[in-house]
Amino acid sequence: MSTEEVAKKVVELTRKQAWKEALDTLYDKDIVSIEARTMDGSSPETRGIEGVRGKTDWWTQNMQVHSAKVSGPFVAHDRFVVQYDIDVTDKNSKNRMQLSEVGVYTVKDGKIVREEFLPRVD
Amino acid sequence: MSTEEVAKKVVELTRKQAWKEALDTLYDKDIVSIEARTMDGSSPETRGIEGVRGKTDWWTQNMQVHSAKVSGPFVAHDRFVVQYDIDVTDKNSKNRMQLSEVGVYTVKDGKIVREEFLPRVD
Repeated sequence: MSTEEVAKKVVELTRKQAWKEALDTLYDKDIVSIEARTMDGSSPETRGIEGVRGKTDWWTQNMQVHSAKVSGPFVAHDRFVVQYDIDVTDKNSKNRMQLSEVGVYTVKDGKIVREEFLPRVD
Repeated sequence: MSTEEVAKKVVELTRKQAWKEALDTLYDKDIVSIEARTMDGSSPETRGIEGVRGKTDWWTQNMQVHSAKVSGPFVAHDRFVVQYDIDVTDKNSKNRMQLSEVGVYTVKDGKIVREEFLPRVD
């Protein structure tokens, strides 16, 4: 798949919260996934698809998503960007949050090999 | 300046169309600037601040900007993203266009060393 095809598929799948299907079909096994920060102070970088699967499981188990707006994609060369605006409640703390961030993705040989998440700071 | 400070300054300056001031104060002399494509089929990559200055001059000489919405920034580590929605008329062709794209910027030692522009494709 081209970068644009992968990008459009990410948008299609995340719009229906199909994070696992996205992972299984679009991600390289050696994916590098980088968060802005971690809650427990551990490394923001996760390497390998099993680690990213762990993050996805944690998210679906701990977060109740009320609504998610997925905008884009923006595409050029081997890179694409998707914007996520998510209204979510942390099931443990009961905190309701409005998250706004972009994912910056890098594609190689039709698979996502790197993703970085950047929260909105304005 | 931190990545976040550079990012906020880019947003502040581009909101008032101060592209030249952004270039003079925030860009590294060895900046690498990458467009999605070029109109004349030349390389989409420009290296060095003089080349980027040339692109900026071309833009301001050839485009009449009716309105520009600048959203973000989104920031993590050495990277930030800004979204541009610009309503513009090409002075030569008289074509009016609504451009929507993101800039993905990389910061090193307080200066922008790389920028990539990704048009919206949805």
